[in-house]
Amino acid sequence: MSRASVVGVGETEYTKRSPRTALQHQLEASLTAIADAGLTPGDVDGVIPIGITGAPVEEYVADFGITDLRFSAVVPHGGASAVGALQLAGAAIAAGLCSTVLVPFGRNTSSGAKAGQRIHTMPQFHFVSEYERPAGNIAPAQLYAPMARRHMELYGTTSEQFGEIAVSTREHALLNGRGLMTRPITLADHQASRMITDPFRLLDCSLESDGGAAFVVTSPERARDLAQTPVDLLGSAMGHPDSPSSITQRPDLTRVGVAKAAALAFEAAGVTHADIDVAEIYDCFTYIVLCQLEDLGFCAKGEGGPFVEGGRLRLGGELPTNTHGGLLSQSHMLAVNHVVELVRQLRGTAGAAQVAGAETGLVTGYGDMGDGGVAILRKGTS
Amino acid sequence: MSRASVVGVGETEYTKRSPRTALQHQLEASLTAIADAGLTPGDVDGVIPIGITGAPVEEYVADFGITDLRFSAVVPHGGASAVGALQLAGAAIAAGLCSTVLVPFGRNTSSGAKAGQRIHTMPQFHFVSEYERPAGNIAPAQLYAPMARRHMELYGTTSEQFGEIAVSTREHALLNGRGLMTRPITLADHQASRMITDPFRLLDCSLESDGGAAFVVTSPERARDLAQTPVDLLGSAMGHPDSPSSITQRPDLTRVGVAKAAALAFEAAGVTHADIDVAEIYDCFTYIVLCQLEDLGFCAKGEGGPFVEGGRLRLGGELPTNTHGGLLSQSHMLAVNHVVELVRQLRGTAGAAQVAGAETGLVTGYGDMGDGGVAILRKGTS
Repeated sequence: MSRASVVGVGETEYTKRSPRTALQHQLEASLTAIADAGLTPGDVDGVIPIGITGAPVEEYVADFGITDLRFSAVVPHGGASAVGALQLAGAAIAAGLCSTVLVPFGRNTSSGAKAGQRIHTMPQFHFVSEYERPAGNIAPAQLYAPMARRHMELYGTTSEQFGEIAVSTREHALLNGRGLMTRPITLADHQASRMITDPFRLLDCSLESDGGAAFVVTSPERARDLAQTPVDLLGSAMGHPDSPSSITQRPDLTRVGVAKAAALAFEAAGVTHADIDVAEIYDCFTYIVLCQLEDLGFCAKGEGGPFVEGGRLRLGGELPTNTHGGLLSQSHMLAVNHVVELVRQLRGTAGAAQVAGAETGLVTGYGDMGDGGVAILRKGTS
Repeated sequence: MSRASVVGVGETEYTKRSPRTALQHQLEASLTAIADAGLTPGDVDGVIPIGITGAPVEEYVADFGITDLRFSAVVPHGGASAVGALQLAGAAIAAGLCSTVLVPFGRNTSSGAKAGQRIHTMPQFHFVSEYERPAGNIAPAQLYAPMARRHMELYGTTSEQFGEIAVSTREHALLNGRGLMTRPITLADHQASRMITDPFRLLDCSLESDGGAAFVVTSPERARDLAQTPVDLLGSAMGHPDSPSSITQRPDLTRVGVAKAAALAFEAAGVTHADIDVAEIYDCFTYIVLCQLEDLGFCAKGEGGPFVEGGRLRLGGELPTNTHGGLLSQSHMLAVNHVVELVRQLRGTAGAAQVAGAETGLVTGYGDMGDGGVAILRKGTS
């Protein structure tokens, strides 16, 4: 039973070294998403800005044409925030707090705040400060590398299996004309790329990028009167790893928050894994896709390596994944672009990357040391 | 029709120059509120930390005994965040995202971050940066003073009328044994207190304080099985002033976000102003109480000055207001202590400040240049 529908999506151009601010990107993506829905800013009465670089909602009331803002909140889970915002938008609408929610994101990290600066805005989790930082682990790549290394030690997972994720994601990025990465890569390219922090090579890492993305959510009833084929939120859930803030102190380094969220989301949606036609899975690093595939229940823990082989994640494969090129090869829009892509897939407007006949899909989020979110969406009737 | 009930409240000791951190205050208040409800941390599956100084929710999962966190968000509206969190907790529970939500707050401003430092953590609203800061207006007292001055010019409101709010609030603060302020004041004391920023004198301003406060929300059904008389959320709403981020550029400097929220909250609650037995109204400055009384509809715009005269806001008066001593004389807990006090009043456990027979009450929030929230609560049946 759907309580909310995604009715509009928008993206800016994805670039590096943009002269435009995060706010400019955020506002442009917002206007595009609202227009895509056939709405105007005055129709929006809820805003859930995606944190980290997001402008406060007050900017929207002052400058943007929202005259009667009735709801705003922030979901503070890093890369899981977009899925969390989608879930929260649905709840706020179902509870009658507001009728139409904008979820906007914009950033300028390659020419604005640099990675080194952004570290200071990361939540200062107590456990990370106590256990990880003293060992010199500061950047996300350093913090997550031990999870991947542990998986390799326990289950024999290989760098080539991570590479398969990099290669298939790059292949998809070339299809939509928006990807920052414009040349195909091979497994040999992956293996030859320089080591960043063991076991992550350069091509295991997502991009620094500038741009914005946004989506608009409303009630299923209202969605039927708008411009696009609605895409209904069937079920969603958030989950947190045990001891979320310290990775190395967890009982199981390979289990992330998505493990708890997945069972709840599938149950709420009333669908099974076999129903999922397309998946957009948070991919800050290749390994993070692999471990989520396990925690989502597409394969057993430890079997993610073999699971990704043989083209299973490619278009035409059993589980086409990150059909837009993801954070690895399209743009690091903190998974707001994953939601945008899933909506396009379920509308049937994903262009050269369209999964034929896609009706039901899944999007995940992963952030802040492993907080996770899962949302399952389905093409609605218009 | 109530969708949520407040079932537990907690406060720390309120002090200045505390050696304890904001997180320690936050956790202690949380444990007290959870125990007050007859619950344990493992029963909590949602957390809405009150921002500004609040620790991220991940600390609760790591250290606090919450093993299955299903929902967390932040309501980013400064002093309106506590009412916003109460509203959001109700929505999250009604939508089935979680069953029991903790709303915690802790701070250490008098010996931790000083006011000057906190300024840097205030949202950097575009409009404030463009219009207010260049004129030297940086601190909240400076930003809000023009609103009060404008009200005095338009409506003949006097400093003595502000003083009446300071005096009655102080009188109430002496009754619960928790107030930072322990001596009564007279109107003459108010008038003799030094000017901080025209027209705000020292005794028009709220306190710098250390401590924590928290409350617990669950479904009305579950509330009936817990330790305390439940207090039901009848209706709530958030509202934003026109051009919220710039005060001096607004079409009407005297109208704040509560004006939009009040009508919605009363309608949702299905009660009238005559039903309100007790009010806890955000009081960062005396004038902010006065303008909210108007925007809430207790009197017409411009009549707030005469309205507060004659003891109307005192215990025994027509609208007993800030019966705990508020931010002005109890402690600046960002209105989480206002929610705590309203719950105690409606349980009938407010001690010497108890409003006889109080069954229905109202709490407001005001923050970030005038964002507002209104929640109407009623004593439930246990």
